Amino acid sequence: MSRRGLLTGGALAAGGVLAGGAAVVATRAGQTGPPSVDAAGTTPVASVGGLVEPFYGVRQAGIATEPQAHGSFVALTLRAGTDRAALGRWLRLLTDDAARLTQGRPALADTEAELGLLPARLTVTFGFGPGLYRAGGVDDRRPASVADLPSFRIDRLQPAWSGGDLLLQICADDAISVAHAQRVLIKDSRPFATVRWVQQGFRRSPGVEPGGHTQRNLFGQLDGTANPQPGVAMDTAVFVADGPAWLRDSTTLVLRRISMNLETWDLLGRTDRELAVGRRLATGAPLTGTAEHDEPDFAATGPDGLTVIPDFSHMTRAHVTDDRYKILRRPYNYDGAPTAEGHADSGLIFASYQADITRQFLPIQRRLADRDLLNEWTTPIGSAVFAVPPGCQPGGWIGEQVLG
Amino acid sequence: MSRRGLLTGGALAAGGVLAGGAAVVATRAGQTGPPSVDAAGTTPVASVGGLVEPFYGVRQAGIATEPQAHGSFVALTLRAGTDRAALGRWLRLLTDDAARLTQGRPALADTEAELGLLPARLTVTFGFGPGLYRAGGVDDRRPASVADLPSFRIDRLQPAWSGGDLLLQICADDAISVAHAQRVLIKDSRPFATVRWVQQGFRRSPGVEPGGHTQRNLFGQLDGTANPQPGVAMDTAVFVADGPAWLRDSTTLVLRRISMNLETWDLLGRTDRELAVGRRLATGAPLTGTAEHDEPDFAATGPDGLTVIPDFSHMTRAHVTDDRYKILRRPYNYDGAPTAEGHADSGLIFASYQADITRQFLPIQRRLADRDLLNEWTTPIGSAVFAVPPGCQPGGWIGEQVLG
Ligand code: HEM
Ligand code: HEM
Repeated sequence: MSRRGLLTGGALAAGGVLAGGAAVVATRAGQTGPPSVDAAGTTPVASVGGLVEPFYGVRQAGIATEPQAHGSFVALTLRAGTDRAALGRWLRLLTDDAARLTQGRPALADTEAELGLLPARLTVTFGFGPGLYRAGGVDDRRPASVADLPSFRIDRLQPAWSGGDLLLQICADDAISVAHAQRVLIKDSRPFATVRWVQQGFRRSPGVEPGGHTQRNLFGQLDGTANPQPGVAMDTAVFVADGPAWLRDSTTLVLRRISMNLETWDLLGRTDRELAVGRRLATGAPLTGTAEHDEPDFAATGPDGLTVIPDFSHMTRAHVTDDRYKILRRPYNYDGAPTAEGHADSGLIFASYQADITRQFLPIQRRLADRDLLNEWTTPIGSAVFAVPPGCQPGGWIGEQVLG
Repeated sequence: MSRRGLLTGGALAAGGVLAGGAAVVATRAGQTGPPSVDAAGTTPVASVGGLVEPFYGVRQAGIATEPQAHGSFVALTLRAGTDRAALGRWLRLLTDDAARLTQGRPALADTEAELGLLPARLTVTFGFGPGLYRAGGVDDRRPASVADLPSFRIDRLQPAWSGGDLLLQICADDAISVAHAQRVLIKDSRPFATVRWVQQGFRRSPGVEPGGHTQRNLFGQLDGTANPQPGVAMDTAVFVADGPAWLRDSTTLVLRRISMNLETWDLLGRTDRELAVGRRLATGAPLTGTAEHDEPDFAATGPDGLTVIPDFSHMTRAHVTDDRYKILRRPYNYDGAPTAEGHADSGLIFASYQADITRQFLPIQRRLADRDLLNEWTTPIGSAVFAVPPGCQPGGWIGEQVLG
């Protein structure tokens, strides 16, 4: 899936913000710079609303897509009686909504049509929980690794943030665009499912973080540096390359709500914080390097004979060299209401995409649960896994390869 | 207060995103177009993070300031024993935090220093509730109109969203910038106060809404059209022109959490929605005109002999012609978690600034509470009033004219 932003006809019709007035195609090469529409390589702020991500394709959007500023994760529980036929009707409906809204066209029977005109790179990504395969009688088409995760000793999971039969990941560079899509999709889901939980999060607004696309989390860390690079590396890690139609070009999503204890983190000195992860706070450089994307040297030792990057640092424990075993992290920060005593409710909506949970995510998570300096300040409080089926073409619908 | 955005040295040092590398001053004339840094009149997305709003001035920032995309309203309750001297210490501390963070410099003892470098037009605006004047023993300096509002028959106020001794209105074009400032300010408030409530909201991201600065609310309406224009009109409506130092250049803030019933609103046809407000959904034009800023003709009648703009429309009831009696609405949308049955928790964090609540806000609110077609779909569920003291100069602090 190429990473493109098109300026939609709908948005132009709605306001005509562009000097030229004609639809402009913005192609992103590699990962440097935000989607651009002019020669200088910068997107004028005034065109952010009209930028669209393609909806149709062999793979779903919202995965390899450059992460947008706002994300809402909506998990639904199927109502009794939502069988294979009902699932098909529902997914056709939601596919149609997503296909329209992401391109800047109101949904059918959109009651707030004006809110549907400016997608701001809206994507809607569909995930199927194990329960959906059971209800649809298609458990033989469930990717084997999509099953409840084992429990880890670090877990303090709350049912209110866990599980789900259908997941909608709704992302855009504008919060109104996300809120409107969420409203439409939930409304059209009512006959089929109830809302299990909704998690809303944010990253830096487009272009706010200078010089790169790595976002900062609420610990102040650059978060995303060692992600597989767009292109072959990312494709290999994230998408299934072959197999039956319901599997090929699919991926899986592990979603963990991880609370971050800013209170105790704040007690740490800067050096200790950097040791906990193995990277510098200011630049994101490994402790053995000077720039964010320098290769970490896990073997380098200091004058004290110890490794410069601690063996139990988060990076050392999480590190994977082979692209086939990497995961694509696409997390959002959350910041709920603080307590009366002023303690923040902050953390990460950790979202990782990988071709196979068992081969890729689990070994990393096991190593981290076993020993990771960062565990002192982070606690998983929610967990869910989903298969993310392939994309579809015009006239098709998300899930057709699984349920059709 | 002139509306300016400067590119901060801090942000440049942090990443040097700008081709030139030199600080650029972006002056906004009037209200057309977003803050601009190049000849073409567009802000490149890549510079949004470095844009700063001035902190020091005769008036506080965050009022006449072009509304940012994200807003957090934090209300605090004074601890027993927070007297005049303690209030002075606290406000000196918070002033220092705000003066630094808004200019892209970390707060003193900022534990997530990296999050303090990119303000993205961060502003922090301080409001004083009636309880602060009592605790400080300076009730004689409380603007007379800053007192509990009368109750209106439409009110369904919840204590959890009402009242407060100190208000911090934290706004920026980036949600991480808001979250970080909120965290710093609440942390430094702990010895003096507890958190009463926090309301987080959003508007369109910078430049998303083409052709103007009016945002859309979650009913899909253009919301803000008839606000007093920047310059003399806004100054007259919002700021006190004379009087003692604690009053001159101050203003007041009425904050109402108003839930919007999308369920029943969705049952209305388009025509009825437009009649309820008196303006068109697509353009925001009055029903008697064709463009957003056309003057409404409240006397014009249709073939049926009735006024084209219904007498009980929201606009007719709220309308004020004399600038001295207008209010400046600076609201944010909110969208909480929907119910299991999929009903949205959406609404408006209605924030209005005016020189005098009794002369300006109350007559409008009384007319609306009495008769306003929109009442059918909106319910005030929270309410608070604050005096917003004058600004300060370097070395000074917010509140010095009241408590100094
Ligand atoms: C709140 C929880 C977490 C925080 C704050 C966090 C933070 C970070 C940071 C700052 C880095 C270094 C920069 C980068 O490459 O992105 C990193 C790397 C990484 N993290 Fe996490 N992380 C968290 C949870 C997790 C979890 C749950 C997993 C997977 C189970 C994970 C897997 C990884 C991986 C694979 C890397 C790259 C390691 C490498 O190859 O260098 N992280 N994380
Ligand atoms: C959820 C509640 C509300 C919604 C959805 C809403 C929506 C609107 C809309 C769509 C307009 C027309 C466009 C514009 O000039 O902005 C408007 C105008 C206005 N509203 Fe509201 N409003 C709400 C509550 C209030 C409240 C509580 C007040 C004050 C007590 C208020 C005062 C005004 C005023 C003064 C105008 C301008 C009228 C004129 O001079 O044309 N509104 N509102």
